[in-house]
Amino acid sequence: VSAVVPGRLDPAVRAEVLAEALPYIRRFWGKVVVVKHGGHAIAPSTSGGGRPAREATLASFAEDVVLMSSVGMRPVVVHGGGPQIGELMTRLGKEPEFRNGLRVTDADTLDIARMVLVGKVNRDIVGAVNVHGPLAVGLSGEDAGLITASAHPDELGFVGEVKAVNPAILERLLAQDLIPVVATIGSDPSGQAYNINADTAAGAVAEVLGAEKLVYLTNVEGLRRRADDPSSLVHVTDGDELEAMMADGTLTEGMIPKAAACVRAVRAGVRQAHILDGRLPHALLLEIYTRAGVGTLVSP
Amino acid sequence: VSAVVPGRLDPAVRAEVLAEALPYIRRFWGKVVVVKHGGHAIAPSTSGGGRPAREATLASFAEDVVLMSSVGMRPVVVHGGGPQIGELMTRLGKEPEFRNGLRVTDADTLDIARMVLVGKVNRDIVGAVNVHGPLAVGLSGEDAGLITASAHPDELGFVGEVKAVNPAILERLLAQDLIPVVATIGSDPSGQAYNINADTAAGAVAEVLGAEKLVYLTNVEGLRRRADDPSSLVHVTDGDELEAMMADGTLTEGMIPKAAACVRAVRAGVRQAHILDGRLPHALLLEIYTRAGVGTLVSP
Amino acid sequence: VSAVVPGRLDPAVRAEVLAEALPYIRRFWGKVVVVKHGGHAIAPSTSGGGRPAREATLASFAEDVVLMSSVGMRPVVVHGGGPQIGELMTRLGKEPEFRNGLRVTDADTLDIARMVLVGKVNRDIVGAVNVHGPLAVGLSGEDAGLITASAHPDELGFVGEVKAVNPAILERLLAQDLIPVVATIGSDPSGQAYNINADTAAGAVAEVLGAEKLVYLTNVEGLRRRADDPSSLVHVTDGDELEAMMADGTLTEGMIPKAAACVRAVRAGVRQAHILDGRLPHALLLEIYTRAGVGTLVSP
Amino acid sequence: VSAVVPGRLDPAVRAEVLAEALPYIRRFWGKVVVVKHGGHAIAPSTSGGGRPAREATLASFAEDVVLMSSVGMRPVVVHGGGPQIGELMTRLGKEPEFRNGLRVTDADTLDIARMVLVGKVNRDIVGAVNVHGPLAVGLSGEDAGLITASAHPDELGFVGEVKAVNPAILERLLAQDLIPVVATIGSDPSGQAYNINADTAAGAVAEVLGAEKLVYLTNVEGLRRRADDPSSLVHVTDGDELEAMMADGTLTEGMIPKAAACVRAVRAGVRQAHILDGRLPHALLLEIYTRAGVGTLVSP
Amino acid sequence: VSAVVPGRLDPAVRAEVLAEALPYIRRFWGKVVVVKHGGHAIAPSTSGGGRPAREATLASFAEDVVLMSSVGMRPVVVHGGGPQIGELMTRLGKEPEFRNGLRVTDADTLDIARMVLVGKVNRDIVGAVNVHGPLAVGLSGEDAGLITASAHPDELGFVGEVKAVNPAILERLLAQDLIPVVATIGSDPSGQAYNINADTAAGAVAEVLGAEKLVYLTNVEGLRRRADDPSSLVHVTDGDELEAMMADGTLTEGMIPKAAACVRAVRAGVRQAHILDGRLPHALLLEIYTRAGVGTLVSP
Amino acid sequence: VSAVVPGRLDPAVRAEVLAEALPYIRRFWGKVVVVKHGGHAIAPSTSGGGRPAREATLASFAEDVVLMSSVGMRPVVVHGGGPQIGELMTRLGKEPEFRNGLRVTDADTLDIARMVLVGKVNRDIVGAVNVHGPLAVGLSGEDAGLITASAHPDELGFVGEVKAVNPAILERLLAQDLIPVVATIGSDPSGQAYNINADTAAGAVAEVLGAEKLVYLTNVEGLRRRADDPSSLVHVTDGDELEAMMADGTLTEGMIPKAAACVRAVRAGVRQAHILDGRLPHALLLEIYTRAGVGTLVSP
Repeated sequence: VSAVVPGRLDPAVRAEVLAEALPYIRRFWGKVVVVKHGGHAIAPSTSGGGRPAREATLASFAEDVVLMSSVGMRPVVVHGGGPQIGELMTRLGKEPEFRNGLRVTDADTLDIARMVLVGKVNRDIVGAVNVHGPLAVGLSGEDAGLITASAHPDELGFVGEVKAVNPAILERLLAQDLIPVVATIGSDPSGQAYNINADTAAGAVAEVLGAEKLVYLTNVEGLRRRADDPSSLVHVTDGDELEAMMADGTLTEGMIPKAAACVRAVRAGVRQAHILDGRLPHALLLEIYTRAGVGTLVSP
Repeated sequence: VSAVVPGRLDPAVRAEVLAEALPYIRRFWGKVVVVKHGGHAIAPSTSGGGRPAREATLASFAEDVVLMSSVGMRPVVVHGGGPQIGELMTRLGKEPEFRNGLRVTDADTLDIARMVLVGKVNRDIVGAVNVHGPLAVGLSGEDAGLITASAHPDELGFVGEVKAVNPAILERLLAQDLIPVVATIGSDPSGQAYNINADTAAGAVAEVLGAEKLVYLTNVEGLRRRADDPSSLVHVTDGDELEAMMADGTLTEGMIPKAAACVRAVRAGVRQAHILDGRLPHALLLEIYTRAGVGTLVSP
Repeated sequence: VSAVVPGRLDPAVRAEVLAEALPYIRRFWGKVVVVKHGGHAIAPSTSGGGRPAREATLASFAEDVVLMSSVGMRPVVVHGGGPQIGELMTRLGKEPEFRNGLRVTDADTLDIARMVLVGKVNRDIVGAVNVHGPLAVGLSGEDAGLITASAHPDELGFVGEVKAVNPAILERLLAQDLIPVVATIGSDPSGQAYNINADTAAGAVAEVLGAEKLVYLTNVEGLRRRADDPSSLVHVTDGDELEAMMADGTLTEGMIPKAAACVRAVRAGVRQAHILDGRLPHALLLEIYTRAGVGTLVSP
Repeated sequence: VSAVVPGRLDPAVRAEVLAEALPYIRRFWGKVVVVKHGGHAIAPSTSGGGRPAREATLASFAEDVVLMSSVGMRPVVVHGGGPQIGELMTRLGKEPEFRNGLRVTDADTLDIARMVLVGKVNRDIVGAVNVHGPLAVGLSGEDAGLITASAHPDELGFVGEVKAVNPAILERLLAQDLIPVVATIGSDPSGQAYNINADTAAGAVAEVLGAEKLVYLTNVEGLRRRADDPSSLVHVTDGDELEAMMADGTLTEGMIPKAAACVRAVRAGVRQAHILDGRLPHALLLEIYTRAGVGTLVSP
Repeated sequence: VSAVVPGRLDPAVRAEVLAEALPYIRRFWGKVVVVKHGGHAIAPSTSGGGRPAREATLASFAEDVVLMSSVGMRPVVVHGGGPQIGELMTRLGKEPEFRNGLRVTDADTLDIARMVLVGKVNRDIVGAVNVHGPLAVGLSGEDAGLITASAHPDELGFVGEVKAVNPAILERLLAQDLIPVVATIGSDPSGQAYNINADTAAGAVAEVLGAEKLVYLTNVEGLRRRADDPSSLVHVTDGDELEAMMADGTLTEGMIPKAAACVRAVRAGVRQAHILDGRLPHALLLEIYTRAGVGTLVSP
Repeated sequence: VSAVVPGRLDPAVRAEVLAEALPYIRRFWGKVVVVKHGGHAIAPSTSGGGRPAREATLASFAEDVVLMSSVGMRPVVVHGGGPQIGELMTRLGKEPEFRNGLRVTDADTLDIARMVLVGKVNRDIVGAVNVHGPLAVGLSGEDAGLITASAHPDELGFVGEVKAVNPAILERLLAQDLIPVVATIGSDPSGQAYNINADTAAGAVAEVLGAEKLVYLTNVEGLRRRADDPSSLVHVTDGDELEAMMADGTLTEGMIPKAAACVRAVRAGVRQAHILDGRLPHALLLEIYTRAGVGTLVSP
């Protein structure tokens, strides 16, 4: 980015970018966008990016969310935190156990997951946003009945499924121009907490809020028609095509919950779903306020 | 402009322009800007620009005003129309008479001026804006007591001075996201109409509205420290310097009412005044939503 | 009128007039009345009444409108201005051309018509009302999308028909106790202006506003059953009878657009339409606030 | 009145009465007027007017109050009922006892006075008004803390003086376009009721409400400069002159509490006080909505 | 009651009473309860309780109503006053005449009944409540069209039946946290007043207000399955059983209008009806805010 | 508690408790109460009470808070969690280091403290409340700029002091009848988090909210004049006496921050501060809704 010297840009270029962006700003004024922010998206464990890179990406993400909010959009951030949970378990000497790719969660593991998600990852995102002003409010799905959960059918302990989303607390915070940041812990009517898959939870929240957009920030550029071919990036698709891509194995494992949530969301009234590369600086701004966009757009 | 191909711009360039503009959009949300649009600015009589050029500039101006309104600013357009008045007088075989550079205005001339300003120039601007939607409402200073006038002391017939501005009708229209377009005819309590200098009227309207900005669109790039030296363009100045420039003859004749109105406005509470080149496409957007700006900025 | 000495009226007479009027005042509180004010009504070209008489009638009309507004009615004035357009065309040396009784309107004629209607007749009415306070606001049908027009089928150039009326700007002004005065220029979606028949436009405005009353001020006492017989004045009629009178030739030419607009309006929800003699002082007050009324009343 | 045939009145006469009245209607819109209605005013014991006359006058009074309310005034009726209290005491075989012109009131007499004022006179007025619609609400000064009273210093038993007026209940009813009718019983903080002079109470209510007008309906034409000379009727006066007339014995006994209340009220902010002949049909309308008025007007 | 020393109560007892009551307080917040208060309930003619006892009971009743209002319930008091009417008639030497258990009411008797109900009983209740603050407002069914009545079919003179209840005035007073106290006089459209059975009127008011509860305060403990057997007190019943009890003669005469009104009310949407012993101190609080309740509860 | 059988309580006892409590309920309606809930209060490390007792106390506390909220009070819960932080540090093999009785907090310890307070203790309280409905919302002082902190002067690492409290987010949640539960982590403008003493933070929150009450739930009965003498419990005191007790060593160490916060709060506008025994079931209800209260009350 350092090569760009905005002050010296041709005024005509600036004028065109502005004239292109302003109608989007108007169109999305007051509209809700749910952004799923995952541990992988900001800190890919396989890359060489260490702490500074991770923090730069988090700061860019936070700036985008604040800018969107400043021009009237109503962002809701939903996040997971798998890697960080693993880290603390390791420090505590606990051995993670997976079944069908899902973490088996006993009471102690749930306590750990909850402390990490609510007390650490959530706090880090809230903190990065609030550098720009008192805007973000961290929430757990347990607060004010936000996410009602029940045990997952696969008997994974305190791994839960979303039963219902009560958007009242989100709507109230949004009405006050605050930015909710949601850790995906749910609870059942007896008060028992459950750990919830964040991709699915983000979709459910977007549905219930009647969001204009549901955005997944990932560590890939978008969906590809051929996994190994960067030129096969899908720019625009729809629910039917996406379902087909899931069925025929085109999509790799990590993409499946995101793709499934996109399909479900656009069919349930969300206007557009996006899968973006969270490592690209200002990915959100570019996707939302330019005609070309970046990443994969899913329409109904 | 045709050389710019926005679709191919580097995403990083776009991202930076957006990230730079969004805070201005937020900052000016809900703020009033009074834009003086003069006959000269859109149709310079000395240039070779014919009707099509004039119309292109008017269309670009109208688009800027609509875009500003779409992202929450509250533009008020104030306009004159000297050249067009002259045209109709010529057609009717009347000889204009000037005294100290001001048009002497008998009852018939006033009728003509009013028909041209309210029934033609005002209509043209309203029409150009309303291509984008039912946004503009044409007003004369006579409507709802907007501009109370009295006869000019130089005995110029029905040339008047602003005595008072009652902003109620403007505030009501602005509150409904409409764009007032004001022809500068005023009236006295007995109902007698007067023709008012539009530069002065624009300043008075900006003062009374407590506008954030007062912008003069002219047919020059901005003020110059040396009339013949394009490199002496003044980017930023203040009331004191401007007063000195008027006193020592630096400013040419046509700039004096604008400069005087700028000085008065910033001293009366308007935050910033601008003198821009109305011939530059999207001059308003560039001045308001980029850090560098174009033209001359006057601060208190 | 000079023969009346109100101060000496028997108190019982006054008390009875008041006790009769007050229920009407209550009944029409907050109700919209659309008043069509035509050039003929205030300045009959065939009569010997010169400027002073014309002005006296305009002043009486303005006073009535202000009084009605002061006791809670919501008057909307709609006006034409045929004679005044003709005058300016003559001054400019243009020959009016009529086809089937409608003026053929080229671009230059439209410019002239618009200048006269919006920049002169409208201004004169606004000025006469605003002698009583900052109440009237002049509008053209182009403002805020008020009247959408399309070309008349008879290929008369820029003579238009009403396609749609968007009452938002009228409703907003009425809600603020202002008195809209509408010049009947409309525009199509591309921004092209058209000259519209004022009688028809007044009816369309009344329909869309759900007006309580639609009043035509004319230069006749009302409709007559036999054109030459003053004693055949129609006091009360309805849509069916009026249609019959149009069909059998009872009505003279100038009355037909008014009669047709009355029929259409009362069938579209306007409660009552009236055809009054605009030359009678305080004709509006007498028709609205007394039991007997003056002129012809059309009910559904 | 029967000699008046309004239907045949010259339209010019009607127009002038209306044009004269409408500005008053506008001016008094939303304004509070306190009307003291006394037993004497509607049922003069010395005249030969029997029940039917009394009822006609009550009906005319009720119609005026309803008409005033219908054009936006906010009338509050305050009433006494001396003669009617005397009647019931006589039926019950109780001997009225007066000291310095004031009725000595033991517990039983208070019970009787309260039953008559609240349970009979108040009901009769409410009933006469409500023939026109569900408008009037009867109140006693005991309701919602309206009139706080204390014992009269002359040791007259349960005769009280006004200590404070809490207008909240009146303001609430007026805000809902209801017409409060107040019987002048007050109570002290322990709940003990007192009979209050209605002339004084009406003045206190007008003061506290910041009324535009305080009107006493009496059985005289107005105040006279010489008691026996009908031509000496005082049309307009002020507080100082009225005080002088009380001091020098010009005013007869029954007028003194009214005159004193008028003086006090106009000095405490009530704009105008009136003493009218309640026997004149539509006396209220004539006083309020015509330039000449009837009766005596007291200004500050 | 003097044996209870609350200050010394075990904290655990207090805590349990509070924890039990609070949910009822929340549940009934903002809910309307219509309380029928009868002459018998406060002054049982058969008991030896004289004036002091009667006043103690009235004071306890008033305190309950004020406390209910203070924790958000919206009580409406409806009352009769048979015994007091009889007293005044006796003093005036009039012989009461009954037909089928209903008082035959000539014009003079109606005047007496109205004076007693509106001018005495109503005043006594309002006074007892207002010892606690300016809360109660006395109303007659004639005020603001509250109760429209028509003559009773049995030709009993001015004894009327409820034709319609217009709750507007009650709703307005309740919205302002005032306590309406209603004397059951109604009027017909011509303004003629009628005396109405208070038990029936209370039921009609509760229906129209959509009350949560309708409570009859009586001088019995509640309904009994066997008239002479105190142990047969009915704690809970419903409309069907109550109808059966009326049909088979289980209920004594005075209970029948109350029982019939309860049945009708719960079938018309009132959630619960109660018949309580008004002589029990704080009977209302105990019934409403404790689980056990006192008296007979009728549910749909 | 099991010995109490509320259903069998004498109605008179119930009536008196209710009649005593209702005025308090009214008085505290809409009032804010800040309740400091500490780890010690619910889980005294020195007692033998294990998990079940701790949970019973938490459940009783949660029920009280919900009941208070249900009758209109606006509770804000502020909590610490020292013992639980120690537990996790031990599990992670970290050695706590104290200086002048305050925990020295390095970056890792801060992370741990934040996870425990925000991700565990806060969650447990929120969960216990939300068994009764979606009422509680967990907050950290970092959310929406709630607590601005700076480093403690004693160089204890990330131990902070309260610099400012921005109550906006609390007021918004309270306005929606939600119950904020605040973990006392603050942040400075750069986004750095700090651990804050919860006693002090509770006082600062109460001050800024203008709370009616500030309540410390502790594991003692209240303050004692002589540490070893249970009969020396202080029922009522004020700021001056409390200051003296701190100065002369009467108060034991753990009580000092609470006592100091009480003194400061009542001097800064909080009406009453309380130190209660959190182990007593329904301690909050008893203190707030009974005349006698439990524990120590501090008034200004």
